[in-house]
Amino acid sequence: MKPNFSLRLRVFNLNYWGIPYLSKHRAERLTRLGDFLNMESFDLALLQEVWSEYDFQYLKQKLSPTYPAAHYFRSGIIGSGLCVFSKHPIQELTQHVYTLNGYPYMIHHGDWFCGKAVGLLVLHLNGLVVNAYVTHLHAEYSRQRDIYLAHRVAQAWELAHFIQCVSLGLQGKWDGGPGATRNVGTPLKQGKNGEGRMPSSPSHTSKKADVVLLCGDLNMHPKDLGCRLLKEWTGLCDAYLEAQDFQGAEDGCTMVPGNCYVSQQDLELFPCGIRIDYVLYKAVSGLCISCKTFKTTTGHDPNHGGPLSDHEALMATLCVRHSPPQQDPSPTSGPGEKSPLTGVLREAWSELGQGMAQARWWATFASYVIGLGLLLLALLCALAAREGAKEVAILLWTPNVGLVLGAGVVYLFHIQEAKGLCRAQAELQHVLGQAKEAQEPDQEREAAPLQGLREGEGLKEQ
Amino acid sequence: MKPNFSLRLRVFNLNYWGIPYLSKHRAERLTRLGDFLNMESFDLALLQEVWSEYDFQYLKQKLSPTYPAAHYFRSGIIGSGLCVFSKHPIQELTQHVYTLNGYPYMIHHGDWFCGKAVGLLVLHLNGLVVNAYVTHLHAEYSRQRDIYLAHRVAQAWELAHFIQCVSLGLQGKWDGGPGATRNVGTPLKQGKNGEGRMPSSPSHTSKKADVVLLCGDLNMHPKDLGCRLLKEWTGLCDAYLEAQDFQGAEDGCTMVPGNCYVSQQDLELFPCGIRIDYVLYKAVSGLCISCKTFKTTTGHDPNHGGPLSDHEALMATLCVRHSPPQQDPSPTSGPGEKSPLTGVLREAWSELGQGMAQARWWATFASYVIGLGLLLLALLCALAAREGAKEVAILLWTPNVGLVLGAGVVYLFHIQEAKGLCRAQAELQHVLGQAKEAQEPDQEREAAPLQGLREGEGLKEQ
Repeated sequence: MKPNFSLRLRVFNLNYWGIPYLSKHRAERLTRLGDFLNMESFDLALLQEVWSEYDFQYLKQKLSPTYPAAHYFRSGIIGSGLCVFSKHPIQELTQHVYTLNGYPYMIHHGDWFCGKAVGLLVLHLNGLVVNAYVTHLHAEYSRQRDIYLAHRVAQAWELAHFIQCVSLGLQGKWDGGPGATRNVGTPLKQGKNGEGRMPSSPSHTSKKADVVLLCGDLNMHPKDLGCRLLKEWTGLCDAYLEAQDFQGAEDGCTMVPGNCYVSQQDLELFPCGIRIDYVLYKAVSGLCISCKTFKTTTGHDPNHGGPLSDHEALMATLCVRHSPPQQDPSPTSGPGEKSPLTGVLREAWSELGQGMAQARWWATFASYVIGLGLLLLALLCALAAREGAKEVAILLWTPNVGLVLGAGVVYLFHIQEAKGLCRAQAELQHVLGQAKEAQEPDQEREAAPLQGLREGEGLKEQ
Repeated sequence: MKPNFSLRLRVFNLNYWGIPYLSKHRAERLTRLGDFLNMESFDLALLQEVWSEYDFQYLKQKLSPTYPAAHYFRSGIIGSGLCVFSKHPIQELTQHVYTLNGYPYMIHHGDWFCGKAVGLLVLHLNGLVVNAYVTHLHAEYSRQRDIYLAHRVAQAWELAHFIQCVSLGLQGKWDGGPGATRNVGTPLKQGKNGEGRMPSSPSHTSKKADVVLLCGDLNMHPKDLGCRLLKEWTGLCDAYLEAQDFQGAEDGCTMVPGNCYVSQQDLELFPCGIRIDYVLYKAVSGLCISCKTFKTTTGHDPNHGGPLSDHEALMATLCVRHSPPQQDPSPTSGPGEKSPLTGVLREAWSELGQGMAQARWWATFASYVIGLGLLLLALLCALAAREGAKEVAILLWTPNVGLVLGAGVVYLFHIQEAKGLCRAQAELQHVLGQAKEAQEPDQEREAAPLQGLREGEGLKEQ
């Protein structure tokens, strides 16, 4: 990497609302989207809700001169709806499908069938490794009674954890968590907690990402638990909040009342609109990343035609520059830096616990229904043997078998749901345990049974 | 990291065969396993098939003085069966559940219900980041007619890809793939292909792992496609093959005829035993890792009692030493190094294609059954209206409704299966595309439409 350089990255994000037969003016919007993307020639265009692979293939063909690299992330029964178009070659691709994603019997909501996921593409730009993530979390169908809250929080945690594992790397034992400072990869000896405990790593080790970019429809408002968890844990910055020049809908809203496709029911509680689509970013220590411009559409397409979707499109220009590590601002380096993260981790832990209790309640309920159904089946068998009630018994057999089988599926599903929530909770518990340990005074730590790493029998230092 | 140091790591791996009510002498074997692990005091003990969380809790409590850190990886309906016990604090934890894992209607095989996964734990030992993975892939029930082959290959690819994304990092555009050399993190300018195209990364970037360790029951013989794919892609070394001192079953077998719990049917084709459990490892450039000793049990427990499981336990002592990068052996640095990897990738691509065709066949078949079932239902409705056939029609209603519902589930399942296989195939296709691109002569590459990265409109170099 040359000491004086800059990388300008123009990014486009849109939840395209491409449900075959249901989304209005789909074909016409697709054509206009393709024309716009070709005209603007972004570095990266990341789309959600491209449910039909034919739509992706159409765009891929149309955009191929401007965006030679494209990928459609397949998952679940319908698909993840995620796809990317890149002006630059894609070096690596992967995806992570969320463990929890709604309920199969909520067919009218349909999220379960989609296999919601996060897709990752790795680009090499000017000698930098750019990890770009695109995601779409479970929808919020009712804000007052959100039965999917625990699932969305678990998804946000999985997303944050996945980004951290793949792109951000370890920060030492506990120095306020990965999001405590805005720069990843700060040498561990600089950590406020766990100071000097971990020697710095050999410089020739395989590196993680230099720049992390996350775009997508998070289906969460900026202050929602999952959104805070994601930002606090990863330390990603919100392009709307950081932009030097913003143009677009009021408060950066991405679903606005002026958009003719937006259901007014969705905005009942928020008549001015909601912000649920994001461009988030981060760079390693030694690099300075800033958002030069951030634009959203405002209920119609950028060329003043009809809207491209029921969501607004986001367009960000990011600028990455070299910045020596010692000159980095350390806005969150005080000892209190742990508190917001620890707080939000605890809140998430508790929310997952509630979800788990609910899942177990449903599993128990389903097991009672199975028991009752089996009892009824036995009763129907007995009735069928008697001459008078034979017909009625046979008639009732079908719904009863259906009941038992259905309850069985519900039981298994909620057992799986509880396991998934329990897993996320255990991961949060682990992180909180480390936080607690790091907060203990050094003397206590030295006496703690888990310590003595360097003196361990299996470790020999010559 | 001090220049002259060594890290000795003693690892234990066992597929414990802990199916409640079905596995013989489970409680007694568990007690002996706990005693043995306490006595030996390994650095890490990684177990598979601990299906009951009570068994894990029992071990956790029993082992807590020797192994203060423990984790149970929860997934699916039953669980992943994976757990770990560590003498050293666990810094980070995560898991990845495989997309494809058998069929729900193969209840007697049961793999689908387990949620087979790979678990990762990150340890900090002597200033090194050690990423230890534990996994268990789908079982092979019939070697002659293995209906799960495509799933196992997809799992092996997901496993290899997951390890690469989390622990190994990028190796440049295509320098023979991640497994082309035995050391990860070799500066990119040293790559044989793609030479000088990527400048080396800033040294302060967050690092990936220094040492990667993978233990588990892969349910694959050493020469099987998935096993070769995993080893070639990740460059992991096989402890059995590399061990300086080996003691144990002939040919390193991990299911041997002398074990009283082994079903002789499983060893019908291989009367001397099979090797399907592995300890694989790798270190970054600058570190030299070797396997000092490798032991397996031989059909009875290490203290000459009954066997601990139907699988043999593996015990490896690994030694990590400092080794300057220039002194590293480069056994696979010739230009032909790409061939075995490219070959195995193509083989996997083709195997996944066959699996996909099979999945689509089943989906089509299920859709015909649905059509037929609906036709029959209409016919039964018509019959029910006629006086003579009323009873028969009502009696046939139940199995017919069941048929339609069942076929619906089978249809959806195989559509999802085809999507999962298609995803893995697309990832392989991407990698093979890069290989092809890298093999083209430099002149052609320069003229290729995907090139011109540095001259891209969005990128500005000052």
